[in-house]
Amino acid sequence: MDEPLWDRLAILGLGLIGGSFALAARERGLAREIVAFDPNVQALADASAAGIIEQGFNSATLAADGADALVLAAPVRAIVSLLSEVTPALAPGAFVLDLGSTKRAIVAAMDRLPEHVRAVAGHPMAGKEHAGLAAADAGLFQGATFALCATARTDDAARRVAEQLVTSLGARPRWLDAATHDEAVARISHLPYLLAATLAHSAAPEGVARELAASGYRDTSRLAASDVSMMFDILLTNREPLLDALARSRATLDHLVALLEAGDDEALRGWMEGAQQKR
Amino acid sequence: MDEPLWDRLAILGLGLIGGSFALAARERGLAREIVAFDPNVQALADASAAGIIEQGFNSATLAADGADALVLAAPVRAIVSLLSEVTPALAPGAFVLDLGSTKRAIVAAMDRLPEHVRAVAGHPMAGKEHAGLAAADAGLFQGATFALCATARTDDAARRVAEQLVTSLGARPRWLDAATHDEAVARISHLPYLLAATLAHSAAPEGVARELAASGYRDTSRLAASDVSMMFDILLTNREPLLDALARSRATLDHLVALLEAGDDEALRGWMEGAQQKR
Repeated sequence: MDEPLWDRLAILGLGLIGGSFALAARERGLAREIVAFDPNVQALADASAAGIIEQGFNSATLAADGADALVLAAPVRAIVSLLSEVTPALAPGAFVLDLGSTKRAIVAAMDRLPEHVRAVAGHPMAGKEHAGLAAADAGLFQGATFALCATARTDDAARRVAEQLVTSLGARPRWLDAATHDEAVARISHLPYLLAATLAHSAAPEGVARELAASGYRDTSRLAASDVSMMFDILLTNREPLLDALARSRATLDHLVALLEAGDDEALRGWMEGAQQKR
Repeated sequence: MDEPLWDRLAILGLGLIGGSFALAARERGLAREIVAFDPNVQALADASAAGIIEQGFNSATLAADGADALVLAAPVRAIVSLLSEVTPALAPGAFVLDLGSTKRAIVAAMDRLPEHVRAVAGHPMAGKEHAGLAAADAGLFQGATFALCATARTDDAARRVAEQLVTSLGARPRWLDAATHDEAVARISHLPYLLAATLAHSAAPEGVARELAASGYRDTSRLAASDVSMMFDILLTNREPLLDALARSRATLDHLVALLEAGDDEALRGWMEGAQQKR
């Protein structure tokens, strides 16, 4: 990038996503100065020592003070409360982007921001087994779809900056409305988590089963090990789409049990073939 | 191995498991001669051309003719019918081992074999993404637990041969009864498959969701792509343990839905932490 997009970029949250964003922003020269807030002081110290940020703050408002760009990378409900807390400290006309996992609650919060702020809600469809700054990676967003939701504070300039930013991270911008996003991630991300957790609750291997366990249980239950704080905020801010998805899964299970109980072998084979094709 | 265990080893089924067994048996010099049956003539031709077997037969009985060792690697119900079909062709005192996925139906079939036969039911807890001879690997069983079930045709000599064989494959013999085995694999293998298939049926990504899909859906639904013929026989021969496991999963889902509907956030967080710990 020839010219930095911003003078002072404040990143709130230096976990896997915020840390990866900071690394990528540094590498691409997106801002003259990058500062950060994280409740974990060690993460701030590590990021400063590694030269990823110029300065770490244990107050979100101090980090945001005078910033012309704000990026929020935290559990969804933390993002919602940080938005109202820190926005008064921003420079006039500042650009605001979040990287949270659900979008309706955040878009609603952004709609209420002061009119001078240019705010876009975002969600990079990228992740990793391991959480935390230590797992951060400047290439994490490379090739990923990056969902973007317009808010009442998204003008044409904000759209262009968001697209330029996402593209410079190597990701593909995809505008969509918050409800469509949340319904889609309920299917592809949150329901898989809940079924993995259901498997862990109903069939965690003990005794002989633990000795015999192979990769099937391990892979299918992998998401049950997800970060609870992050997932908790996701479930609380995406209840309705999740209840719909769970109702479909419950009906599918009921149908499966009926096939097994009735000994309807041809229908059972058809059900299995259907699952294989849909997958 | 100083001396081959057998003169003529007949392997029925040259897919991933039977093919890997043939490769390992060849490498370790377990038999002077290895012959095989498979309904897929191409697999027989490939195995002959690669020098893995001395001869391929398109009749299971011809393959078994005069063999002093018989290994069955096929879907469970195919193993059950092959057992009664080919046993009359075996040499007196022949050793019989199967590698099928469930054990009660096979142990019951082995219990009915002629008295001269020495039969052990087995299940190596090893697998791979890909099926078929092309994916076969002499090291597939290395380090795996290898379940063994005694039958009415298992004498001390059969026990010793089975243990020697499993050890020579680099696996760990684990004797257990068929019902215990089947209940354990219902939890660790078959229920994960059914929940993966349920996910594929109730949340296969379409449209926007397909664009956004990341690794969560892919990993959790991976088992839904399992070989349908193999899994179909597994479900039909393990109905009761599976219905028990499914009943537990349904109760777990009902509990989860109740927590989400009631807005009982602390209990929901406890449920998530429980899943994380159990996993």
